[in-house]
Amino acid sequence: MSTLILGSIGIDDIETPLEKVERVLGGSAGYAAVAASFYGPSRMVSIVGEDFTEDQRRLFTDRNIDLAGLDTVSGETFRWGGRYALNFDDRETLFTDLNALAKLDPVLPAEYRDTRFVFLGNTDPVHQLKVLGQLTGPEVVVIDTMNYWLESQRDAVGQVLARADVVVVNEEEARMISGHHSVPRSALEMLDMGLKAVIVKRGAYGALLRTADEWFFTSAYPLLEVRDPTGAGDSFAGALTGYLASEGEVTDQSLRRAVIHGSVVASFAVEGFGLKSLLGLTPADVKRRYAELLRYSRVDLDSD
Amino acid sequence: MSTLILGSIGIDDIETPLEKVERVLGGSAGYAAVAASFYGPSRMVSIVGEDFTEDQRRLFTDRNIDLAGLDTVSGETFRWGGRYALNFDDRETLFTDLNALAKLDPVLPAEYRDTRFVFLGNTDPVHQLKVLGQLTGPEVVVIDTMNYWLESQRDAVGQVLARADVVVVNEEEARMISGHHSVPRSALEMLDMGLKAVIVKRGAYGALLRTADEWFFTSAYPLLEVRDPTGAGDSFAGALTGYLASEGEVTDQSLRRAVIHGSVVASFAVEGFGLKSLLGLTPADVKRRYAELLRYSRVDLDSD
Repeated sequence: MSTLILGSIGIDDIETPLEKVERVLGGSAGYAAVAASFYGPSRMVSIVGEDFTEDQRRLFTDRNIDLAGLDTVSGETFRWGGRYALNFDDRETLFTDLNALAKLDPVLPAEYRDTRFVFLGNTDPVHQLKVLGQLTGPEVVVIDTMNYWLESQRDAVGQVLARADVVVVNEEEARMISGHHSVPRSALEMLDMGLKAVIVKRGAYGALLRTADEWFFTSAYPLLEVRDPTGAGDSFAGALTGYLASEGEVTDQSLRRAVIHGSVVASFAVEGFGLKSLLGLTPADVKRRYAELLRYSRVDLDSD
Repeated sequence: MSTLILGSIGIDDIETPLEKVERVLGGSAGYAAVAASFYGPSRMVSIVGEDFTEDQRRLFTDRNIDLAGLDTVSGETFRWGGRYALNFDDRETLFTDLNALAKLDPVLPAEYRDTRFVFLGNTDPVHQLKVLGQLTGPEVVVIDTMNYWLESQRDAVGQVLARADVVVVNEEEARMISGHHSVPRSALEMLDMGLKAVIVKRGAYGALLRTADEWFFTSAYPLLEVRDPTGAGDSFAGALTGYLASEGEVTDQSLRRAVIHGSVVASFAVEGFGLKSLLGLTPADVKRRYAELLRYSRVDLDSD
C-alpha cells in the first residue's frame, strides 16, 4: 500500500565537530520517502527549484517513490545549513533559504487522493491541513511538527493534531504541546487530544510510544559513532509510516514493530551525511538490525 | 544469600523545584541496603555519628540488614545538602559535612568475610580496596564510583575496576573512564578492562547493559511525577546486586532481569524524599512494577 509523504526537499550544508559537507540532498520529505521505500511505494508532495537535477529525481523514482506531487518552480531549491555541537545533539541553524519552498501550495495529483497511509512531515501546518482536505479517506495520518510552528501557528497545529492519528515529536515539542515537564505526562495529555498513538523521539535514547492502554519503549540502536544526526527524525517517521502501510493496519503490536523499524532506519541515517547511507542500504540490512534491536530488549520469562 | 554493601549513611537536606526537606535519612549504603532488602538479607559496612538513633537503626535491622559492620563514632553523622534544577536532573551540592564519614576505616566483622555478592557503593576507592582485601572469596563484585574519585584518585579507581565484575556508572562517569563521548563505545572500552558487565544508568531514560556478547537496554519505569531523584542510582545498584545474590548466579539473562529490578526499585525511590517510599514498599509492589516494565518492551514475534 502506498504512503503519502508531505515535506521539504532541501540541499543542506552540514558541519559536525569532525566533518563539514556542502550541498547534500536532504529535507524532511527526502529522508522520510527514502526511509519508507524499504517497506513499499510512496507518493511525495513537495517542491524544488530548477536546479534540482534528473539524477536527484532518479534517486527517488528508482525506489518506487512517485514524484507526480513534486512541483518544480523557477529559482533554487530550499537550502539549509546547520552546525552540530560537540555532543552531536544540540544544533545551530546557520542559514535557511526557503527559495522554492516559499511557493509550496500542495495540490494533490488526482491519483494521490485515495492514499490511506499518510505522513505529514514538518512543514507549515496550513499545508498539512490543505493536504488532509484533499484526501478522500485517510485511515492513518502520522504527523510531525516543530517548535517554530508551535510558537507561530499554534491554532493551525491544533487543527492538524485534531485530525491526526499518530503524532511523532521530540521531547521539547511534547513539552511545548502539553505544557508539562514530565514526558510521560505530556504523552498522556496529547493522547487525550484524540490521538490513537503518541510517539516521543528521544535521540540516542530511543523512543516511547503511548497508546490508549499501554506504554512501549525502545532504545535507539547502539552506535559507536554518529556522523550526521540530520534527518534522523524524518527517517524514523517515514519508516514508521511505511511499515504501518505495509502491514495495512494499526494495532498496539504493529505500532511497536513500527517504532522499532523507525529506530532502525534512523540509526542507519545518522551513520552518513545526508541521504547517503540510506541510499546504500538493502532491505536485508534493515531486517538484520531490526532483529538485533529486538534481541537487545528481550528478557526470558522467569518465575519472578 | 547475603549481599555485602559498602557506602555512606547520611542525613540529607534536599531541595527540588517544588519542595524542600531537611534531615532525611539517606546515603549510598542506606539506599542500596534497603533496595537489596526486597531480595534477601544484607550486611552493611558504613559509619555513623552518635546522633544516629535506635529508631533509625531499626529501620535497617527490621529488614534483615545486618549492622555488625556499622561503626559508631563520636560527633555527627555525614550530612549532605543538594538542590535540583527545574529539570530534576542537574543538581548542585549545597554542602558536604563528612563528620563521621571522615573516620571510615572499613574493618569487616569476621562473619562478613565469606560474602559472595558485594556492592561497593560510591566511597573513597581506598575503602573499596580495603573491603575487597578482607573478603575470602567474593564471586560477584559490583562497584559504583563518581567523577570526584575519577579526578582525585584515578589510580585507586583503576585498581578497584581491575578487581570488579560489574561496574554501574552514569553516562558522565562512563565517558570519564573511557575518554570517549559515545556511551556505547565507552561501555565496550570498560568491558575490555576485564569486567564481566558494564551497566550505564541513564536516569529517566533507563539503563544499558553490556556483557561480552550482547547489549541490553531497558527504559526507566515511566513516572508522571518525580519527587526526589536522590539515591536513585544507589537504589538501582542495591536492587541489582540483591537480585543477583538471590539468583545465586550471573548470566546474561540474570543480569538483564537484575537491571530491570534495579530500574523498578529506583523508580519507587524517586517517588518520595529520602528512603520514605522504599520503606513503605512490599515485595508485591516490586513484582507488579517489574511485570509492567517487562510488558513495556515486549514485541510479539512476527515474520519481519
